[in-house]
Amino acid sequence: MNGAESLVRTLLASGVDTCFANPGTSEMNFVAALDQVEGMHCILGMAETVVTGCADGYARMAGGPAATLLHCGPGLANGLANVHNARRAYAPMVNIVGDHATYHRPYDTPLTSDIDGLARTASHWVRTSSSSKTVGADAAAAVQAARTAPGQIATLILPADASWSAGGEIAAPLPVPARPAAAPEVVRNIAQVLRSKEPAVLMLSGRALSEAGLLAANRIAHVTGAKLRAPSQVPRMARGRGRVPVDRVPYMLNNALKMLAGTKHVILVGAKPPAQFFAYPGKPSLVSPADAVTHVLARPEQDQVAVLASLADELGAPMNAPIPEVGTQPELPRGKFEPEAFGRALGALLPENCIVAEDAVTSGRSLFAVTYNAAPNDWLQNTGGAIGHGLPCATGAALACPGRKVVCLQADGAGMYTLQALWTQAREKLDVVNVIFANRIYKILQTELLAVGAQPGHVSKELFDLARPELDWVKLAGGMGVEATRVETLEGFADAFKAACRRRGPFLIEFRI
Amino acid sequence: MNGAESLVRTLLASGVDTCFANPGTSEMNFVAALDQVEGMHCILGMAETVVTGCADGYARMAGGPAATLLHCGPGLANGLANVHNARRAYAPMVNIVGDHATYHRPYDTPLTSDIDGLARTASHWVRTSSSSKTVGADAAAAVQAARTAPGQIATLILPADASWSAGGEIAAPLPVPARPAAAPEVVRNIAQVLRSKEPAVLMLSGRALSEAGLLAANRIAHVTGAKLRAPSQVPRMARGRGRVPVDRVPYMLNNALKMLAGTKHVILVGAKPPAQFFAYPGKPSLVSPADAVTHVLARPEQDQVAVLASLADELGAPMNAPIPEVGTQPELPRGKFEPEAFGRALGALLPENCIVAEDAVTSGRSLFAVTYNAAPNDWLQNTGGAIGHGLPCATGAALACPGRKVVCLQADGAGMYTLQALWTQAREKLDVVNVIFANRIYKILQTELLAVGAQPGHVSKELFDLARPELDWVKLAGGMGVEATRVETLEGFADAFKAACRRRGPFLIEFRI
Repeated sequence: MNGAESLVRTLLASGVDTCFANPGTSEMNFVAALDQVEGMHCILGMAETVVTGCADGYARMAGGPAATLLHCGPGLANGLANVHNARRAYAPMVNIVGDHATYHRPYDTPLTSDIDGLARTASHWVRTSSSSKTVGADAAAAVQAARTAPGQIATLILPADASWSAGGEIAAPLPVPARPAAAPEVVRNIAQVLRSKEPAVLMLSGRALSEAGLLAANRIAHVTGAKLRAPSQVPRMARGRGRVPVDRVPYMLNNALKMLAGTKHVILVGAKPPAQFFAYPGKPSLVSPADAVTHVLARPEQDQVAVLASLADELGAPMNAPIPEVGTQPELPRGKFEPEAFGRALGALLPENCIVAEDAVTSGRSLFAVTYNAAPNDWLQNTGGAIGHGLPCATGAALACPGRKVVCLQADGAGMYTLQALWTQAREKLDVVNVIFANRIYKILQTELLAVGAQPGHVSKELFDLARPELDWVKLAGGMGVEATRVETLEGFADAFKAACRRRGPFLIEFRI
Repeated sequence: MNGAESLVRTLLASGVDTCFANPGTSEMNFVAALDQVEGMHCILGMAETVVTGCADGYARMAGGPAATLLHCGPGLANGLANVHNARRAYAPMVNIVGDHATYHRPYDTPLTSDIDGLARTASHWVRTSSSSKTVGADAAAAVQAARTAPGQIATLILPADASWSAGGEIAAPLPVPARPAAAPEVVRNIAQVLRSKEPAVLMLSGRALSEAGLLAANRIAHVTGAKLRAPSQVPRMARGRGRVPVDRVPYMLNNALKMLAGTKHVILVGAKPPAQFFAYPGKPSLVSPADAVTHVLARPEQDQVAVLASLADELGAPMNAPIPEVGTQPELPRGKFEPEAFGRALGALLPENCIVAEDAVTSGRSLFAVTYNAAPNDWLQNTGGAIGHGLPCATGAALACPGRKVVCLQADGAGMYTLQALWTQAREKLDVVNVIFANRIYKILQTELLAVGAQPGHVSKELFDLARPELDWVKLAGGMGVEATRVETLEGFADAFKAACRRRGPFLIEFRI
């Protein structure tokens, strides 16, 4: 057995059976091994940032890692932005990056590059297999690293000769370390803080945003009056009717400061201290009040659900604390696009148990508050700020959850980074409704230019404008085998969206706004 | 003056007046400065790999660097593959990468990443501006580094507070080090080797492939019988009628070995020792004979033209050595696509003084030998093996040479990496004819799988196939504002290409092969 075959068999033995790939010559032995070994589901992406974005979406919904197969340093570089986003979501991922044969590297041929250096910038774990004999063991260690809480990026660099040489050995799965338990005194101390009834905010992320986590957090809020909040970007959140409604900290600084004003205790549950996405001259980076005390109830690698339950028990909270009311389902709004009205339309139309993948900073900002009453769903966001996340994330999520409708909410500027994901959706016949917010401008940048105190001039207008020429998303989707339509009103959107939800397979709605 | 303004003014003072950009919030002060300072031509790319690929094509044709403007680590990562290609072409480039304000980094907000680590993997020079006061001096040093022979990648990381703070100072241009002259004894020794009349090959790259370099090399070949060869991938080569015909070392191992068999002396003129692109089990990495002696006439950073002229003089070669005949212009071939026949068609049709940007490993391999008799042209290739180079390189070349027709020869699989470049072509009304070789397969990988001794199976067929669904390049181009047509025969291609050459502005021909 060569190294490549031992790699495939070890990945399968370790429970990794999905591989998003864009291979090259140095990965040919891995590909040949895939031909020989049954059981690995391989999905082709036509650009590596699609490949890694798919792996992110897959991992968030599957709860375990997919592998990616990438070609040398440039292949990894092309995929690194969505690896960055996955790292920020604590999504586990096993990247297999092919390299030249070890003895070939001194010739510094065109594709030679510093893969190890590249990988380290965005991975928790990096290793280069030194020979075919170690490939299996290295792969098992990579999966172990990826599965280690809270979920890590593991990158295994595979020289071509380690891949093609004989002597490969399948390695048994390695044990995954248990999530560290909360220290009882931490729970007791924070219970004490909450009993004081001083204004407190629980900042929830990770598993705390699962249905179970939110229910436990709601018990705490019920007996203490603590506010439940989530970061501006959530990796995955259980939302919709029957779920505990939790507001995110707003992206806009003044709104964030207002939300957290008066808070005396910020209690972190898998989240970081709330900070501004970007710094602005003379403004604070942290958005919690300067005199608030920060407490860590659960670190990202701990089991936030268990810790929240312990705290609720410690506080004597009832098991079935009432879930706050969020009003009734609104009527379907009509007329031109307006963020909040769109959100109300979406809230009325989202299908039961769907997955929402959102990568729309400007158009998406108002969606949360008006969709609490939607059908139950899992909502995924771009956690790392590297735009072009929505389409591939939706694609990977659809592969992880074949029975569920996926709704991708994608800004047009960001969508152009990874439009190739549409082709993978068509190829795999994935059940995704892609909604493109076609405002034909990098709207967020216009806002940010004003935020630094500048006035738009001829260059900035040029650099933010996406309307010359106008993108035609119906043609772009059609060019990749995805049916599409264009709408210009909320009622037009409602009709198109309902029709798209009734059928199966990918569809795209360009909403001209 | 803030740091950003000092940066723009310093770049202009140093002769950098073109900026390919995909900015984000952390670059807003740079954008605001561009609004205030006249003279910087800014071109928007809808993905960073388009931005850097444009800068590569621009630099190869303009002979000096453009700037790129990239957003944080993910923006740089997205652009890194074409930075890699540019590095392999010794194309000068000044990357400006925005980062968070220095005091904001400890909060580890979503976009925080190791920009310095990323930049080092593909740059010759990396610096982070520590304050607004040093930005100007840092920019001047970056341009100096980029202009230092043979052409370097300089990456300047610009924290937002260095950009927005007052105290910026414009720096004067720094002197560019002269290219080191050849040592007279090196020229004498190699003249001695060539006088022996033992079989010798001059491996030409860099400026040796300019018209002047080729003429000097031809003088040497004329009096010594030495063969003139180029690497498999050339950064820029003067080709066509009246130019010295030089064959590349073939990509396929056996053909490369055959070309160089019997060679006793390999004389490097700005080139590396000829090595295989990839290693194959049991095959040599170097393709020159094991008993051949390698001599370095000129390193990449030397002036290959001057050194070749010195050697020709030393050998007493006549100034006007006859240029080898390459036959007559062939008739226009007809029928289905076949690489050599396509090359003959192209040779007959290329317009006078055009620029060819080629990124088509499989379909492009046979083009060189049958296009010696084309109209004079400059031919650019993907030098780093990171695919997706052709469309952006053509775009940048067209911006550098507004009066010249650019012909982009792009494989479909590679073209899908950077199709967004078409939008920039439409926006800037660039005079580019894009020819897409639509074989609907990663053909090179099929070849390479066989080369490692494997037989295609169900997974490899799946991973190489681009036909399910079929890409429709006419729609894709139309979606980005570029007119397009589809052809299926060589006569159809000839008609479409002639029509495209008669008009100005971007056009795309999908050649179904």
